[in-house]
Amino acid sequence: MGAGFADRLAGAVERSGTPACVGLDPVLEKLPEGLRGGEPAAALEEFCLGVIRACRGMVGVMKPQSACFERYGSAGMRVLERVCHAAREAEMVVILDAKRGDIGFSAEHYASAAAGIGADAITLHGYMGMETVEPYLRAGLGVFVLVRTSNPGSDGVQGRRMEDGRSVAEMMADEVAGLGEQWMGAGGRSDVGAVVGATKSAEGRALRARMPRAWLLVPGYGAQGGTVDDVRALLDERRGGVVVNASRSVIYACGGKEWEGGVRAAAGKFAEELRGLAAPRPT
Amino acid sequence: MGAGFADRLAGAVERSGTPACVGLDPVLEKLPEGLRGGEPAAALEEFCLGVIRACRGMVGVMKPQSACFERYGSAGMRVLERVCHAAREAEMVVILDAKRGDIGFSAEHYASAAAGIGADAITLHGYMGMETVEPYLRAGLGVFVLVRTSNPGSDGVQGRRMEDGRSVAEMMADEVAGLGEQWMGAGGRSDVGAVVGATKSAEGRALRARMPRAWLLVPGYGAQGGTVDDVRALLDERRGGVVVNASRSVIYACGGKEWEGGVRAAAGKFAEELRGLAAPRPT
Repeated sequence: MGAGFADRLAGAVERSGTPACVGLDPVLEKLPEGLRGGEPAAALEEFCLGVIRACRGMVGVMKPQSACFERYGSAGMRVLERVCHAAREAEMVVILDAKRGDIGFSAEHYASAAAGIGADAITLHGYMGMETVEPYLRAGLGVFVLVRTSNPGSDGVQGRRMEDGRSVAEMMADEVAGLGEQWMGAGGRSDVGAVVGATKSAEGRALRARMPRAWLLVPGYGAQGGTVDDVRALLDERRGGVVVNASRSVIYACGGKEWEGGVRAAAGKFAEELRGLAAPRPT
Repeated sequence: MGAGFADRLAGAVERSGTPACVGLDPVLEKLPEGLRGGEPAAALEEFCLGVIRACRGMVGVMKPQSACFERYGSAGMRVLERVCHAAREAEMVVILDAKRGDIGFSAEHYASAAAGIGADAITLHGYMGMETVEPYLRAGLGVFVLVRTSNPGSDGVQGRRMEDGRSVAEMMADEVAGLGEQWMGAGGRSDVGAVVGATKSAEGRALRARMPRAWLLVPGYGAQGGTVDDVRALLDERRGGVVVNASRSVIYACGGKEWEGGVRAAAGKFAEELRGLAAPRPT
């Protein structure tokens, strides 16, 4: 029996009509000019709250990048808390991109921290084994375990072959699917999801086959080169089960005074591009 | 040319005469009774500052567990900052046990955060490839990449075989050694270290052979079952190159009013046990 995340995510995608997820990766130097003066953490907060307002009603999922907030120490963490709560209030699902991974005892603390700031789910490393993933699920969070990432250097680890012919990423996918069976939601998808980059669609199809009931969180769309066709390769049998993240192409769409309107237009375009995803590929 | 961490660590081990490292993993329920009332973050701070005072002059390295502090949100992060600074002022080397792992852009933020709170080094996941480790080095931090951990569930990933006969952990060790060659300190050891659990000494010997010039951070000693002989298997050719962590067996040595004295006695015993490590094993 699941913790409810998989079903909550399905609801958010259904309500918005799109699997679009906007990544909150605020970097001071890239903020609209009018926000750049003053205290960094305050600028981050104003920006992120503006992005949430701009996306409200169009996009159902937000993915704050923990690193961008942690960079500003305890002040940054306070902002992260407020941003997560604002997204929840806007009826968005919040996936905290924190890429944690530690033994049970520490995992419980990380889970408690993530739940405390208002996250619905968290991204995780699985290198220490699936027992280190379970504490987050027991705390009521959904998880996305890193399986295949889209950065070039990942090939040196994730792309290597095991003695049974699987890649390291495929081995991790099987671990994810195994744990996921124990955490199924009512809607037939699991609270144990995976991160699979959009720029690896050839491999992505094989990974999806190994994780038929997992939600896939797909970074690498847009600015990083992933296309709608790359994402299509990752759909499950019901032509769903993906959440597609874009960050820079949406949140930095406009640097001027009317930046919130610019973000709104970019978010609408992004949401629309993915709306047709479930339709058969034109031949 | 290295960032200086490897040499700084060597200095700390030499000055204290022991590779002992004390893990700051404070959990509210386990604190001495007199500290448990009042605000959690304040209790954590008082406890950790007491442990640092108790260990001063006997132990050269402290390893705060980030999760224990993050659990208390921004207030916890402020305490972590103060604890790291106090350890630095006590002339200890600080290894932040944060087990981060993300692409370059986010890695830069995590590195900036770790350096900002006063860490000398940080623990990391290498699953996204060594390019995701480099930003920490460029920021002047030492790193310890997770290679082989001592939790039972880790076998399901780290213990599996690659097609070339290496284990996944050995593959990761080779990645660490490769990157490490580019970050050598003046003393002949690298700023790129590895985490190798003390309870895996049979495998540990093979991993050490693959990383002859790496500092190994060794958890699992004491309360978790690792022995001096397990650690001996991890020494390098110069009978050094390890830092051995104990946490619970030292910091919770005494729960009464005289807890600081209890920690001091336990830290002294721990430091002493490891002092003879460099001597040949009795036959």
